[in-house]
Amino acid sequence: MAASEAVTMTPFERRTRDCQDRLDADEAIVLFPSPNLYYLGGFHETPGERHFFLFVTPDDAAFLAPALYEDQLRAETWISDVRTWSDGDDPIEHVREVAADLDTGSRVLLDETMWARFSMDLRTALPDADFGLATDVLSALRVRKDDAELDAVRRASEAADAAMRDVRALGVDAVGMTESALAAYVEDRLEAHGGDGTSFDTIVGSGPNAALPHHHHGEREIEPGDPVVFDFGTRIDRYPSDQTRTVVFDGDPPTAYVEAHETVRAAQQAAVDLVEPGVTCEDIDAAARSVIADAGYGDEFVHRTGHGVGLDVHEEPYIVAGNDRELEAGMVFSVEPGVYREGEWGVRIEDLVVVTPDGCERLNHTTRDWRP
Amino acid sequence: MAASEAVTMTPFERRTRDCQDRLDADEAIVLFPSPNLYYLGGFHETPGERHFFLFVTPDDAAFLAPALYEDQLRAETWISDVRTWSDGDDPIEHVREVAADLDTGSRVLLDETMWARFSMDLRTALPDADFGLATDVLSALRVRKDDAELDAVRRASEAADAAMRDVRALGVDAVGMTESALAAYVEDRLEAHGGDGTSFDTIVGSGPNAALPHHHHGEREIEPGDPVVFDFGTRIDRYPSDQTRTVVFDGDPPTAYVEAHETVRAAQQAAVDLVEPGVTCEDIDAAARSVIADAGYGDEFVHRTGHGVGLDVHEEPYIVAGNDRELEAGMVFSVEPGVYREGEWGVRIEDLVVVTPDGCERLNHTTRDWRP
Repeated sequence: MAASEAVTMTPFERRTRDCQDRLDADEAIVLFPSPNLYYLGGFHETPGERHFFLFVTPDDAAFLAPALYEDQLRAETWISDVRTWSDGDDPIEHVREVAADLDTGSRVLLDETMWARFSMDLRTALPDADFGLATDVLSALRVRKDDAELDAVRRASEAADAAMRDVRALGVDAVGMTESALAAYVEDRLEAHGGDGTSFDTIVGSGPNAALPHHHHGEREIEPGDPVVFDFGTRIDRYPSDQTRTVVFDGDPPTAYVEAHETVRAAQQAAVDLVEPGVTCEDIDAAARSVIADAGYGDEFVHRTGHGVGLDVHEEPYIVAGNDRELEAGMVFSVEPGVYREGEWGVRIEDLVVVTPDGCERLNHTTRDWRP
Repeated sequence: MAASEAVTMTPFERRTRDCQDRLDADEAIVLFPSPNLYYLGGFHETPGERHFFLFVTPDDAAFLAPALYEDQLRAETWISDVRTWSDGDDPIEHVREVAADLDTGSRVLLDETMWARFSMDLRTALPDADFGLATDVLSALRVRKDDAELDAVRRASEAADAAMRDVRALGVDAVGMTESALAAYVEDRLEAHGGDGTSFDTIVGSGPNAALPHHHHGEREIEPGDPVVFDFGTRIDRYPSDQTRTVVFDGDPPTAYVEAHETVRAAQQAAVDLVEPGVTCEDIDAAARSVIADAGYGDEFVHRTGHGVGLDVHEEPYIVAGNDRELEAGMVFSVEPGVYREGEWGVRIEDLVVVTPDGCERLNHTTRDWRP
């Protein structure tokens, strides 16, 4: 292609061309409203009950969407081939037509989040096709962030840091507040610092609730001496932040908690210190896990050390035992070891990091101390 | 079962028993974090990248979930059979074990929103099974709301009405605000009136953006004479509201808009007037559509008349041409005709209604006038 075309190509079109280059001649990708569809098509929609597909073959790309989206699609996507169906039509017939026109080939790679309702209909429409997942093709592109993506993740992380500082500034005023009131405060502060909503359900877990790693928040009131786990994120330009701090707002926490917090903090630092291109994901996990195991808390660190972050707040690379994938510059992931003492307390510390050509850039900069 | 057991059974257990009664001996349902899973299991989680299933056979029910959910699951679900896997395990092996223990039979009915990633793994784990969707079994239960569900939908609708009144009270102050600022105001007012977040992306479409039925909101500023479509919802006790009003805050809108608004209002009333048990969904759609077609706007009413509302904000029954399903008492759905003049303006008016034994209860009570 001519250089002048390359200059005017949107990031979405460039990514689609890269994706097409990775398809075999007999392969086609079928996406559904998802981060993958936005990544290639530049069109955001939440999954819904209507048939809404983006077909990508080595040479073509086409939307098949409900008619009521037509104007909006044409306004927002760079893809000119937009076909529509109307309520009352049989969407399966439309799928057959698009597949025939685009010559989709014998192997169909589905968006990994496509609902069973739609994957069943694609199987009905294309009974001779062999079905797989588009995950490998797309995650190979998405796992290394470009400059625009990194810029968005940095700004989202700055908003999260600013919100965390506001939360710590509550000090003893946080005692007596409910977890839900604190979660609402976190979300208000994220918006105030430029964030767009939340990137996942805000977690505020206090006292024994802090021992439930995926507890969201409830009506429990914060008491003096309670460790409180804050795990939250927002989005800027569709890219998320994700950080965790464990704070005691007033009073003295259990001695065992103080020891565990120091252990988790050291484990998190050990893992971050190891990040650079060529190190494997399982090595990063092991770096955190060995510090925690050596301190005697191995059985209470019940989850992996981290996950990639991009358009999805959980994506490749997963920082977990058994994942021998090597880190590459441009990868972004969380480092978030934790220790959970059932019925008593929990602690987790999490930052996002970017793999740089010669090491690591940490994206969260607020104190990792448990004191407010 | 003894009467004393029936009294202490939670709604979740009762629904699961009803569901099991509808399964054939060789059928099993496999759910994944979704409204269906909450409806039966009483456990809410958003879909994620980890294998998380609820298996239901005619005689048994069991969770297979990531280990980090174990404590929370045991605290929140009535189902005692909770099996877990840990990061690093092969979840497909665990699926095989659960399926063998529960004797899942030859036909597996999947949650309709299960991600392709997981339905592919279930096909790998159970290569001899015939796969279908659990939709018919579950929606037959979910389509008629019980008293607790109706109470939640009524309260969510009251919160939406209160927020809509606050929006109208802005009057001329809304002129000059951006769509996004108005959307933030709507969401703030929903929370102030007891709502829990939004039940879908808030729509504030002004002027030509009002002609895009699924436009969300942007940086366009409201001008005098602009029709502004507000379509928004919140949740109370996990059940949503959903209403639409089209308002002109100041100045004179186009004459054609005024005429179309009166037409849509009459169409909406005609459809609501027809609601009672035994009338079909397509009859309700036709009642609205014929009023709009008779006024000459038929080509500009580009979507169905409505959709059911429950744990999903879009669910059965769909009020659309070709759906000859008869209404039954306890059904809840939207009635939302619209007319969209491309590049100029749009109008949509929507209320939720409950089918009662002898007619219809409208859940939204704010004025349907376009004047503020």
